[in-house]
Amino acid sequence: MIKTISLVTLTTTLLMASSLTKDAANAGLVPIPASNAELLKLIDPKGLITDAKIELGKKLYFDPRLSKSGFISCNSCHNLGEGGDDGIAAAVGHKWTVNPHHLNSPSVYNAVFNDKQFWDGRSPDLEDQAQGPIQAAPEMAATKEHVSAVVNSMPAYLAEFKNAYGKDVNVTFEKITDTIGLFERTLVTPSAFDDFMNGDENALSKEEKAGLQTFITVGCATCHNGVGVGGGMNSLNVTATYKHMNVGDFKGDANGMVRVPTLRNVTQTAPYFHNGQIVTLKEAIVEMGRIQLGTAITDAQASSIEDFLKALEGRKPKIDFPMLPTSSATTPKPDLN
Amino acid sequence: MIKTISLVTLTTTLLMASSLTKDAANAGLVPIPASNAELLKLIDPKGLITDAKIELGKKLYFDPRLSKSGFISCNSCHNLGEGGDDGIAAAVGHKWTVNPHHLNSPSVYNAVFNDKQFWDGRSPDLEDQAQGPIQAAPEMAATKEHVSAVVNSMPAYLAEFKNAYGKDVNVTFEKITDTIGLFERTLVTPSAFDDFMNGDENALSKEEKAGLQTFITVGCATCHNGVGVGGGMNSLNVTATYKHMNVGDFKGDANGMVRVPTLRNVTQTAPYFHNGQIVTLKEAIVEMGRIQLGTAITDAQASSIEDFLKALEGRKPKIDFPMLPTSSATTPKPDLN
Repeated sequence: MIKTISLVTLTTTLLMASSLTKDAANAGLVPIPASNAELLKLIDPKGLITDAKIELGKKLYFDPRLSKSGFISCNSCHNLGEGGDDGIAAAVGHKWTVNPHHLNSPSVYNAVFNDKQFWDGRSPDLEDQAQGPIQAAPEMAATKEHVSAVVNSMPAYLAEFKNAYGKDVNVTFEKITDTIGLFERTLVTPSAFDDFMNGDENALSKEEKAGLQTFITVGCATCHNGVGVGGGMNSLNVTATYKHMNVGDFKGDANGMVRVPTLRNVTQTAPYFHNGQIVTLKEAIVEMGRIQLGTAITDAQASSIEDFLKALEGRKPKIDFPMLPTSSATTPKPDLN
Repeated sequence: MIKTISLVTLTTTLLMASSLTKDAANAGLVPIPASNAELLKLIDPKGLITDAKIELGKKLYFDPRLSKSGFISCNSCHNLGEGGDDGIAAAVGHKWTVNPHHLNSPSVYNAVFNDKQFWDGRSPDLEDQAQGPIQAAPEMAATKEHVSAVVNSMPAYLAEFKNAYGKDVNVTFEKITDTIGLFERTLVTPSAFDDFMNGDENALSKEEKAGLQTFITVGCATCHNGVGVGGGMNSLNVTATYKHMNVGDFKGDANGMVRVPTLRNVTQTAPYFHNGQIVTLKEAIVEMGRIQLGTAITDAQASSIEDFLKALEGRKPKIDFPMLPTSSATTPKPDLN
């Protein structure tokens, strides 16, 4: 008798879970694959990733000497210890310049799942994206020549490039940024949500499951979908009048639209929006409901959605902090000006 | 017969090695102990170090939120991937302010062996030293209140402090900087020189042994001695007229003297001198000979000394890059101004 009841209960739970994962899948939500081979197909469709390239890309990612000043690395604004961003409303860079369009540094974690990069989606992939901030005057302010001169000045870097790409490798700026992009492709963070979608029905608490349902019902997944739970379209009208929108002069893409960011690890990447003007997650949820969905999200709904978003906080890859090659006599000198 | 010759040769080599290590010891050079227990006595005489405190101290060391801007951590200027410093002539900090006295960031590696801290030796230990740059306006520009508010705003930090110090811990600014200092105590880098001094006569090449002999004979060990191979006295007259000395207005200690830096990892910490005005190690060696020893060090001698200094390049501790606690609603906001 007890056994029968247990069985019934179990079946009901399974049906419920199955129904929710089905709803989520129908809403366009896709988990990070549980299988490493499947994940690799997704993040490295060209099959370029090797351990040697990743290790080298990590060094370059953490190396401030790529910047003109010698003070700013990729990790300065996309800090892997801080949710993959900097926690600052608008990015700061070379000569303490605030981003001229008051743009917030997006997280590098799971950026591989974005089908385009930057807040206006102007860059097709991480390798291309990596060329931008290194050269931007308000960010790392380096020239291509500076970057390749820095790396080529260090025998230990050259040895690693030869090891990764073969002895005839030409260590150009593009080869360097490609290698950084490859490292960034590995920065994915599977979460309890993924475990749930991949079949572990106990991975989410009751509240988190309810939150996922609210997220779908309210319509958040209209834009925040795909493996990235965002990152697949430009859909926020930058000229729309909404709270805090008057900070910065960002124009969005050709249609005045702003990129939908990933919601993975969103609990760790405040402040929010492309201009970093919203401080709390709940306020961001309510604002998005109002502007994007024309819905007055209730406090209870916002709390429920927040419960779900917490379940998107992912397991970060373990990073051995890299010891960088030693500068040589020919390494370009840092220039703070 | 052959056996006898072998024995004689071996004995001679041992005697030679023994003679050089004896010369080095007589010159005041002391290796980092090979035994972990002996090393601990040296770096942690009060027996305060625990794994929990070190792991917590590492997080705080890497956390830019301790700074006013949220952009600068201890590691920004004392980069553990770059010889423990920043490779920049004069340190840069909050609002891109160059150190007002044009002082160069010293390496944090082996700083535990300094008997006093800072270029004028005004601080007795690492725990006290850690309070300085965090509060200095041209560096991290934070108040004590900011730092303790930041750390106290994050439940994960508080849990780690309780775990490290007991549940009644009061997470004050001083407790935070003490914990950073404890982490820094572990940043020691044993080198081939230490292996040699500790009995492995093959740890140094012929050239490195000759370099050690030159180092002693020329008189470098007069100031660069002790376990730190420096860090034990203030002996450079800051008002002496020498090349590049006119950069910066640093006054040294009460007697106008500047601290002798450690030579450990000196190959990785260019540019040199308290004001970072000498670019190559060879030039630094020759300048020191001229000013401090009244000796015209020949090019051959300088090269030989450089051979020895390379043998002071140490094995760095492995650092797992820390994932930092997530900011909460009450965490003070970054302020770039």
